[in-house]
Amino acid sequence: MPDVYLCGTGGMKPLPDRALTGLWTEHKGTALLIDCGEGMQISLARMGRSLAKLELLLITHFHADHVAGLPGLLLSAGNYGKTSPLTICAPRGGKRIIENICCICGAIPFDINIHELDPEGERFSFDDLEIAAFPLRHRIECFGYSITEHRLPVFVPEKADALGVPLNMRGILHHGGSVEINGRKITPDMVTAQKRPPLKITYITDTVYFEKLAYHAADSDLLVCEGMYGSDEFIPQMREKGHMVFSQSARVARDSHSKELWLTHYSPALRDPFEYESQVKSLFPAAVIGRDGMYKNIK
Amino acid sequence: MPDVYLCGTGGMKPLPDRALTGLWTEHKGTALLIDCGEGMQISLARMGRSLAKLELLLITHFHADHVAGLPGLLLSAGNYGKTSPLTICAPRGGKRIIENICCICGAIPFDINIHELDPEGERFSFDDLEIAAFPLRHRIECFGYSITEHRLPVFVPEKADALGVPLNMRGILHHGGSVEINGRKITPDMVTAQKRPPLKITYITDTVYFEKLAYHAADSDLLVCEGMYGSDEFIPQMREKGHMVFSQSARVARDSHSKELWLTHYSPALRDPFEYESQVKSLFPAAVIGRDGMYKNIK
Repeated sequence: MPDVYLCGTGGMKPLPDRALTGLWTEHKGTALLIDCGEGMQISLARMGRSLAKLELLLITHFHADHVAGLPGLLLSAGNYGKTSPLTICAPRGGKRIIENICCICGAIPFDINIHELDPEGERFSFDDLEIAAFPLRHRIECFGYSITEHRLPVFVPEKADALGVPLNMRGILHHGGSVEINGRKITPDMVTAQKRPPLKITYITDTVYFEKLAYHAADSDLLVCEGMYGSDEFIPQMREKGHMVFSQSARVARDSHSKELWLTHYSPALRDPFEYESQVKSLFPAAVIGRDGMYKNIK
Repeated sequence: MPDVYLCGTGGMKPLPDRALTGLWTEHKGTALLIDCGEGMQISLARMGRSLAKLELLLITHFHADHVAGLPGLLLSAGNYGKTSPLTICAPRGGKRIIENICCICGAIPFDINIHELDPEGERFSFDDLEIAAFPLRHRIECFGYSITEHRLPVFVPEKADALGVPLNMRGILHHGGSVEINGRKITPDMVTAQKRPPLKITYITDTVYFEKLAYHAADSDLLVCEGMYGSDEFIPQMREKGHMVFSQSARVARDSHSKELWLTHYSPALRDPFEYESQVKSLFPAAVIGRDGMYKNIK
């Protein structure tokens, strides 16, 4: 059941009252961060998150507002006592760019493994989470990410008791294996209740709108999606700059059958995104105007 | 008469309630900034300063807490409408390092001229200010800076009237030239009042204490000086890490005959620098515990 924190809601540049967009996810004691713009370590400190837990950093793309906070984050993670390795997934060129921007860091007391993503997208595991990186359409190579937790079905101890399953065999059954007791084969379905659907979080920024976004975000429990402006009048300008407006984000949420949408990555010129709240809710009722430091336990 | 703004008071890393140290100076419509740690553009926005005015950036050294905000600052200055060139003075290696950390910037719409300083120190002019860069003693090459305004003496129109000096000759006299009127030589001292001493601001961070600091800061109207900790018990540890404590900063202020001392660049572990206020004032009465966003018009 991942805990999700919206680190900030700004795009382009950090403002005194609006940090840059990023998503911090904690799951079973380890943390995963998407993007690291200038001031990310301030946002994390404000939310009381410990950098020592960070094990995976997913970078959407190499524009400064998504990555300029990396040198400070790495240094502070070291000062925080982090010694375990950090994996960074990023678009092509990532090794060189990260090496360049971190030339002001000196020695970092933990290993950093940088993985450059296939431009077509990739799927990989992180602990028991499944991560999907999928290509977005921005001015430079850019990825969206989905984080999926495939959950075990609910185990029913009463059923196991009735079948005489000893304690040391219950884990095998819960994780999908079968066992034999007194010559009788016991299968997982005999000791579990209903299957549970996976939990999925999808993060989409920066990109123009395109239909396949809904495919990537399909059935998300939480879709965190960019919207630079609230008004549709900005659609042509945003298409040119590689971004979306709220109604397009709502369309992705609706077409993907997502349960909830958090809007984020507002233009500095959009002073009050709440002005457009009722409008976006009329398109997708479970839309939420993102606020810095917003938290949710996904379950 | 420069206006001086203390952008932040932190060292090592930005905190939610304490930005990183830097000094913004405005003088006759143009601005000069010393250092640019992560979040500098947030501090400047908070203080209402316009990045379009920035013409000179002085970098003390290339540790991340003094320079990691540069990519964001340059991008935002461009978005702010800055088109005039920016000069950056920095320690040796500056061209390569700045090029590296700014590889995430894309195109900047103004020229950037990077000047690598002589390790022995340098003096140069910026508009009608005189800038001195002098070597500090830190873990890597590092410079302190003094900014001096040499002021003209006060012009006395009544004296000029009595001598029959026409308006178009008064500027020449005020700026130190002589003129001849009806065969009589008029010299500057005949139309001016007392000479005015120069105005001087000195900025010192990061460094261990050494005696010559007082020489560089001599007769400053304002000395902005690092102090990582308030207590003398940290002197050995700070000597090792290349820093000072408050009492050493006070000693520099006293020995340099500075008029006022602003302490800054506190360790994140120093939660309340005001605890040491009376102690440092007993050593140097004009000591001020620096606060983020502090402002002074130097005159």
